[in-house]
Amino acid sequence: MYHLKCITCDTIYKPEPGRYLCDHCDALHGTLEIIYPLKSMSIKKDFSKRMGMFQFHELLPVTSHTPLDDYIGGTPLLKFDHIFNQNKLLIKNDGMNFSGSYKDRASIIAINKALEEGNDHIFCASTGNAASSLALLNAHTNIKTTIFVPKKIPKAKLAQLMVAGAEIFPIDASYDEVFDISLEIGLEKKWYTRNSAVNPYLLEGKKTGAYEIIVQNDYVAPDYCFVGVGDGTIISGLCKGFDEFYTLGLIDKIPKVIGVQAENASTLKKVFDNKPYIPIVESSETIADSISVGNPRDVIKACHYLEKNGGQLITVTDDQILSAIEQLAQTTGVFSEPAGAVTLAGMLKLQGSEIMPNDLVCLVITGNGLKDISAVKLQSVKIYSKDEVYDYFEKRLK
Amino acid sequence: MYHLKCITCDTIYKPEPGRYLCDHCDALHGTLEIIYPLKSMSIKKDFSKRMGMFQFHELLPVTSHTPLDDYIGGTPLLKFDHIFNQNKLLIKNDGMNFSGSYKDRASIIAINKALEEGNDHIFCASTGNAASSLALLNAHTNIKTTIFVPKKIPKAKLAQLMVAGAEIFPIDASYDEVFDISLEIGLEKKWYTRNSAVNPYLLEGKKTGAYEIIVQNDYVAPDYCFVGVGDGTIISGLCKGFDEFYTLGLIDKIPKVIGVQAENASTLKKVFDNKPYIPIVESSETIADSISVGNPRDVIKACHYLEKNGGQLITVTDDQILSAIEQLAQTTGVFSEPAGAVTLAGMLKLQGSEIMPNDLVCLVITGNGLKDISAVKLQSVKIYSKDEVYDYFEKRLK
Repeated sequence: MYHLKCITCDTIYKPEPGRYLCDHCDALHGTLEIIYPLKSMSIKKDFSKRMGMFQFHELLPVTSHTPLDDYIGGTPLLKFDHIFNQNKLLIKNDGMNFSGSYKDRASIIAINKALEEGNDHIFCASTGNAASSLALLNAHTNIKTTIFVPKKIPKAKLAQLMVAGAEIFPIDASYDEVFDISLEIGLEKKWYTRNSAVNPYLLEGKKTGAYEIIVQNDYVAPDYCFVGVGDGTIISGLCKGFDEFYTLGLIDKIPKVIGVQAENASTLKKVFDNKPYIPIVESSETIADSISVGNPRDVIKACHYLEKNGGQLITVTDDQILSAIEQLAQTTGVFSEPAGAVTLAGMLKLQGSEIMPNDLVCLVITGNGLKDISAVKLQSVKIYSKDEVYDYFEKRLK
Repeated sequence: MYHLKCITCDTIYKPEPGRYLCDHCDALHGTLEIIYPLKSMSIKKDFSKRMGMFQFHELLPVTSHTPLDDYIGGTPLLKFDHIFNQNKLLIKNDGMNFSGSYKDRASIIAINKALEEGNDHIFCASTGNAASSLALLNAHTNIKTTIFVPKKIPKAKLAQLMVAGAEIFPIDASYDEVFDISLEIGLEKKWYTRNSAVNPYLLEGKKTGAYEIIVQNDYVAPDYCFVGVGDGTIISGLCKGFDEFYTLGLIDKIPKVIGVQAENASTLKKVFDNKPYIPIVESSETIADSISVGNPRDVIKACHYLEKNGGQLITVTDDQILSAIEQLAQTTGVFSEPAGAVTLAGMLKLQGSEIMPNDLVCLVITGNGLKDISAVKLQSVKIYSKDEVYDYFEKRLK
């Protein structure tokens, strides 16, 4: 029904257990893609606006095996009129996903794939969301979970990992180093990997957000779709999803996908802006921990997709991200983690130049604000005594 | 279409702006109930398992006015086989509601009602969830929000309040004191109230969780439904919802609702167990902040409903709650705040005596664990150096 293809040399592989990367290319150039015979497939416009991501089973490389599958994805597409100077704005709120992030879409694919392959152990390196997603979604199965995270992981994400009962290694290292360590250990042990880019099936989960945006907007494609970018897997997934629906004839244009990075974690943008695409490794530093990536693992795939879709990458500052968290919450009620609020910061940056009030824009909120509250200055709140509250209102009355 | 009725003296009132309590009874005995002419209504079994709570508009006292309404409620009813020694277990996961708690169901009713009445200011006293729900759900409207909370509010709930831009008064006082202060100020100013029990419309939101449990379980009523109890409003709402669906002929029995309280915050249970129901006020102390209530405001209504439904109230210890948080996450993937995990602790307590493996039990998870991570002992996690990780796996290999 589908096969795997190297994104660089186009070598075709059969979908066999243990097949992650191309034999002929290095790890960044040799990531694989799942290819469906789309042109021979007949898919109707009769998807539900409310069902979870497994409703797209004909376009997924796994079948459903766990009791949580039906409740992953299917997150709200909020629709607002006349906000942020846009006539209409869409917000895809994956903060309402099962574990509170977009990463659930990939985790549930990995878990079901590991079940199908009979693997009894799964591992993941993560800044936090992919790990907490995997640990919670996998808690009910008999597959063991091992997690590698940087010790700087936000407390709420660590709490998710700990209650889920996963084996956890918080390491005194950057995410990029943690990724390498995990891969070395996990692959040697032949555990199933839920690491971005390495496992080609993960992208198939991540593409479902694009499918849902289209279905929930009555098969009308937005003009622009903003998403935060770290490793480059979510943006690649969104692009693939829009591409596939276009090829299937379900939409009549492909949204322009705009990836937003933090100013000091913008390695992928630097690679994309200097064709030919040559991967580089930098250090990264941003309050948006989920996209604090200096060695993006899906760099080549993301560049290819962005070029194909006419997308681009832009950067915003940490101050702009902090401001966007509040603006988003105070205007829409959506409390986003920093890596989700970058999308609003990015849209505001492009308004007046590229983005016009009539353009239909969709912001993809990839994580719940409850997952990282360090962006909110809690200590600035005033505590009142009972008398002070009464005094305050007595004065205000006069 | 509906009228209001005093729960104690049965006096009937018209639904008019500003009508909250009975003129003849005190605040605890004189809470009002919304009464529909159910026996003359014809409601079909054709609700959706996925739609939000406004699909029940015929049984709600407001119409929808905000862009968020469609995305409140409609949370998953997870279904597990053979866990916790139950052949089948249902989990209503309101941790996936918009702001992460069951309280969204009441907040959205209050907001729409305030819009209908043309009130430009709404207020709320809360242990945290009702407040953060109101602040976020109301952020998009032009109605001003004022919030009164105890200063002990969990950090994540405070963060939600702060990003939402509400006017906040964290007070050095217990929730019960904060409630009285808020009511004194808010009612004098003629602001719309979103305070439990006082506003009879809130219960109409809270009953929708019961409706959804029935619809999502194919109109088969569970034998037992467990829910955490503080003020007594959610449990009253659940009972009312089941009752109404029974009266409408949509189910053939009413589930036995079992309210679970923390051992040192079990005032409502003491009142219920000593008929005639005489409200008492105590101090309360539990890690389950959302149900840390010593002066329950819906005490009389909850007692009446529990008596009518054949329900009961039980207590669990804080240690049992802490253990239940982990057991729930490690078995189902659901990370609950303490006040939600009391339901599992309660079920485990009754297993072998009242609850049998064949009984169909539903646990109502009223809040997301991300809202209060203080129950997870984060400091107990070991941080690894890179070398330590390699050493660990090298030793394990041998």
